[in-house]
Amino acid sequence: MTPSPRPVVTAFDWVPEFARGLVRDLRVRWAFEEAGRPYDTQLLGAMQPRPEDYLAWQPFDQVPAFADGEIRFFESGAILLYLGEQHDELLPSQPQERWNAISWLFAALNSVEPSIGPLISYDVFHADKPWAQEARKPAAEFVQRRLSRVNDALAGKDWLAGRFSIADIAMITVLNNLRHTAMLADFPELAAYKRRGEQRTAYRRALEAQLADFQADPPLTPAGD
Amino acid sequence: MTPSPRPVVTAFDWVPEFARGLVRDLRVRWAFEEAGRPYDTQLLGAMQPRPEDYLAWQPFDQVPAFADGEIRFFESGAILLYLGEQHDELLPSQPQERWNAISWLFAALNSVEPSIGPLISYDVFHADKPWAQEARKPAAEFVQRRLSRVNDALAGKDWLAGRFSIADIAMITVLNNLRHTAMLADFPELAAYKRRGEQRTAYRRALEAQLADFQADPPLTPAGD
Repeated sequence: MTPSPRPVVTAFDWVPEFARGLVRDLRVRWAFEEAGRPYDTQLLGAMQPRPEDYLAWQPFDQVPAFADGEIRFFESGAILLYLGEQHDELLPSQPQERWNAISWLFAALNSVEPSIGPLISYDVFHADKPWAQEARKPAAEFVQRRLSRVNDALAGKDWLAGRFSIADIAMITVLNNLRHTAMLADFPELAAYKRRGEQRTAYRRALEAQLADFQADPPLTPAGD
Repeated sequence: MTPSPRPVVTAFDWVPEFARGLVRDLRVRWAFEEAGRPYDTQLLGAMQPRPEDYLAWQPFDQVPAFADGEIRFFESGAILLYLGEQHDELLPSQPQERWNAISWLFAALNSVEPSIGPLISYDVFHADKPWAQEARKPAAEFVQRRLSRVNDALAGKDWLAGRFSIADIAMITVLNNLRHTAMLADFPELAAYKRRGEQRTAYRRALEAQLADFQADPPLTPAGD
């Protein structure tokens, strides 16, 4: 019997220092590690043009894209859901628990992550502008309101959907986008939750694997948007 | 035999004019109309405090929250997926088609919608600031790059996943957040796609139902964040 080929996830072979540990293939690697399932990476060269057919696989020219046998698709949230449907330890099958986890998966990606993007734009890309602090203030307050809601929802629970699930992989990797700030310190449940996630062996293995795939030296030209 | 109760979606009984037609219960109403399935609304009073237990149902104190019998959860993306799993006309069951649709569902909510939020903050909330135009420019360019990718992906297709699906409900309602701009005019495939969606009977019924639930007169105090 020919063994099935391993599933494949795309990743970058280089990103700037500030993005290391934040690139979204980490979510998929983490899910694979939780499920104890081997996977292969297809690295996209930061110095080389993308393979010509990459946009047909990942229309936004980003990572991760994913293939499992003949099935090919994109978006880290979709890939987490796919792996969740295959591995009970990533997504409960009991209906209410399943939809709790899927609700929090979407919440991480559509209610929390979008609030953080503007903050990063002010802190990383507009930090030198005279108006950056004024513009940042309401953006930071919006992030704080969202964090406060998640903090409250975690009261008395280790994980968003009760037991560990793809929702936690999404939420904890989303929260990591705030690592350049001290914002989580104001939300003790949330800070403890993030530490709990990052102490998992599967998270540490996934992070090591992403970092190990980066070249040390920067390429001559940056990767795409 | 007692008939099953209808599923319930929460909505607001009033929002400001600029938000009418954009509130996210529209996505769920549209899906119900496509499936020809009756539903009930539970309206949240803009003038009244929320029901005490609402945060346990919708942790961000927003709409929509959803109940179907004993199953209760939140997030418009999760609700679309749930209805997709019940109604083949909303989500194909063939694996590659199913994951194409789910990829585009997440893409609408996690790759496109987050790019639009900053633009709205400059155009609606910071329009009077001296720095608004300077800050807006890179945000608008980012939106344009994302729109360009979706436009290209639509070449030769009526709908994102081939046939109509929950991905289109998500993407078209996301694109509607740009209605205060002329940006779609630069992307003919995308503009035609959005028109195609909004000409569907189910979309028009859903929009009418959302608008019909709004009180004409503003309440004394605004609704929550």
